[in-house]
Amino acid sequence: MLRVLKESFCSTSFTTTRLASFTTVLSRTLRLGEGGSAREFWFWTPPSVNPDAAYTFGIIGDLGQTFDSNKTLQHYMEGKGQTVLFVGDLSYADNYPNHDNRRWDTWGRFVESSTAYQPWIWTAGNHELDFVPELGETTPFKPYLSRFHVPYHASNSTSPLWYSIKRASAYIIVLSSYSAYGKYTPQYRWLEENLKRVDRNKTPWLIVLLHSPWYNSNGYHYMEGESMRVQFESMLVAAKVDIVFAGHVHSYERTHRISNIAYNIVNGDCLPVHNESAPVYVTIGDGGNAEGLAAEFTEPQPDYSAFREASFGHAMLEIKNRTHALYYWHRNDDGKAVMADSVWIRNQYWH
Amino acid sequence: MLRVLKESFCSTSFTTTRLASFTTVLSRTLRLGEGGSAREFWFWTPPSVNPDAAYTFGIIGDLGQTFDSNKTLQHYMEGKGQTVLFVGDLSYADNYPNHDNRRWDTWGRFVESSTAYQPWIWTAGNHELDFVPELGETTPFKPYLSRFHVPYHASNSTSPLWYSIKRASAYIIVLSSYSAYGKYTPQYRWLEENLKRVDRNKTPWLIVLLHSPWYNSNGYHYMEGESMRVQFESMLVAAKVDIVFAGHVHSYERTHRISNIAYNIVNGDCLPVHNESAPVYVTIGDGGNAEGLAAEFTEPQPDYSAFREASFGHAMLEIKNRTHALYYWHRNDDGKAVMADSVWIRNQYWH
Repeated sequence: MLRVLKESFCSTSFTTTRLASFTTVLSRTLRLGEGGSAREFWFWTPPSVNPDAAYTFGIIGDLGQTFDSNKTLQHYMEGKGQTVLFVGDLSYADNYPNHDNRRWDTWGRFVESSTAYQPWIWTAGNHELDFVPELGETTPFKPYLSRFHVPYHASNSTSPLWYSIKRASAYIIVLSSYSAYGKYTPQYRWLEENLKRVDRNKTPWLIVLLHSPWYNSNGYHYMEGESMRVQFESMLVAAKVDIVFAGHVHSYERTHRISNIAYNIVNGDCLPVHNESAPVYVTIGDGGNAEGLAAEFTEPQPDYSAFREASFGHAMLEIKNRTHALYYWHRNDDGKAVMADSVWIRNQYWH
Repeated sequence: MLRVLKESFCSTSFTTTRLASFTTVLSRTLRLGEGGSAREFWFWTPPSVNPDAAYTFGIIGDLGQTFDSNKTLQHYMEGKGQTVLFVGDLSYADNYPNHDNRRWDTWGRFVESSTAYQPWIWTAGNHELDFVPELGETTPFKPYLSRFHVPYHASNSTSPLWYSIKRASAYIIVLSSYSAYGKYTPQYRWLEENLKRVDRNKTPWLIVLLHSPWYNSNGYHYMEGESMRVQFESMLVAAKVDIVFAGHVHSYERTHRISNIAYNIVNGDCLPVHNESAPVYVTIGDGGNAEGLAAEFTEPQPDYSAFREASFGHAMLEIKNRTHALYYWHRNDDGKAVMADSVWIRNQYWH
């Protein structure tokens, strides 16, 4: 049975809807607006949670609203992605005079061609902070949180900035780089509890999204994610997370399976090392925003880094079954047909 | 001229008052309450900001409301402290069933014998979080922020959880271990700006208060402050902070002047080293709360640690002039007359 609950917020081109109680994948039509402004959209209902379900995610970060952004979105839509994992920095409205909120609306219209038809799972980036005390705005994340509703209550979260969601054979955890993550804080406590709720027999794939990367060998934003890595990395390694996707750096990078969790202050043991229990880290902040590419990598390329390139693009994760997924990155310059970087990911729990 | 502005909040035994425009040190009397419940208090107006002013701070942390707490407070009041630097964990009301808020009131009555007569500069600890989603309380810090007002606006802060205050020859910065401190966050931006406002010609002494220590060789809460250290330590070293006071660990420890800011992920350079530009770190979470002492130190004592002991007590910082201050720690078992640990602190800017 289809239940569509319209919520109270409606921006120029967004209407938030909440859908529940599907058991089969169906195409559905949705009519939004009234009278002459009514428009029809359609979408596929999500598959049931199923450990062997094949499913394809797109991964996009730091999109903005430029010609490069257009190209990234267009390339993504030409592919077979069923849900977007968005790793933060959406509209870049805060780069316009007085954080011009109309740029949130223009961005909404821009991405509608995909977001009206399939889910985008949102992560907050620094461009969502909109903290402008000089303009009297002292509550962080206000424009973002007013526009982008996420089902955080369903995962026992107390904030839309961190939550988890199950989709097909994947369990996706969204974290907030710009909220408190110290021990005892709400986000820390939630992550600790939420990881216990992951059942790899139901959702074999465990994926984490956050904005500021923990492993980044680009000079741009170098080590900015370090403080959060120090707090959370050992928890993700213990949970055998498959992949961590981050944005923030306007470039592309993929690491080997590595960790850096042996440090105890006095042992000097602080180099990233290969660790087959650890996640692969992907930085994909190359959606195409107006700030341009981050092309200054640190040299030499560190051992932990498997592939890095300063080009705009997006990535895809094709989950085939509970043991294997094909991951690949498209650079915009190539069009969609070429996998500029690709790797088979073996499930950390089942393989 | 004396101006007393009564604010709206009034707990069982607290009334928040704001005082301004003093030029000389005077004894003043204050009448609070009405009719039969009216009571009189008195206080000394603070000295003007003056680089050569002598001034004595007490330092207390993790006080609670036990017989040990009584002893700590009594010993402090027998000394000559003019202002308390309180490094977090006040009432421990959250340890009582349903976070019994009456324990905030009993704590208010307990500390009134000092707080009614001199300023206590408040820092939030984990026992101030009172985050209890299972009881419907999802806003952190609510009981604490409702009871303890601080003049955060005066230092351009947007939150009472981080602020700075000038007193005599000292500039005191209060940070929040349990708020966001990642780059771009309000606290991060505020600290960066606030450090630029410090004028060591006016306030030679630069002191930082926070709850979860960055250097702690006790097994209790080991490395819990690491994530915040990684984010902020280089800023404090660059600013030549004199002393960082922390609580959280129910024990006492003082470090040498050390830093650990050379690490760049790939250089393996992550041991604390002696650094004459760095602060002294003091952990003084030994106020006497009901959770008891933390007596399990890591062995061997690391090079960075100058003195450590698991005893209840409090510390004093006697600023003599712009170049020298006498710092000492009293353990409760000795009474007030013995300096169980003491060191002359030379000003980082003027000496």
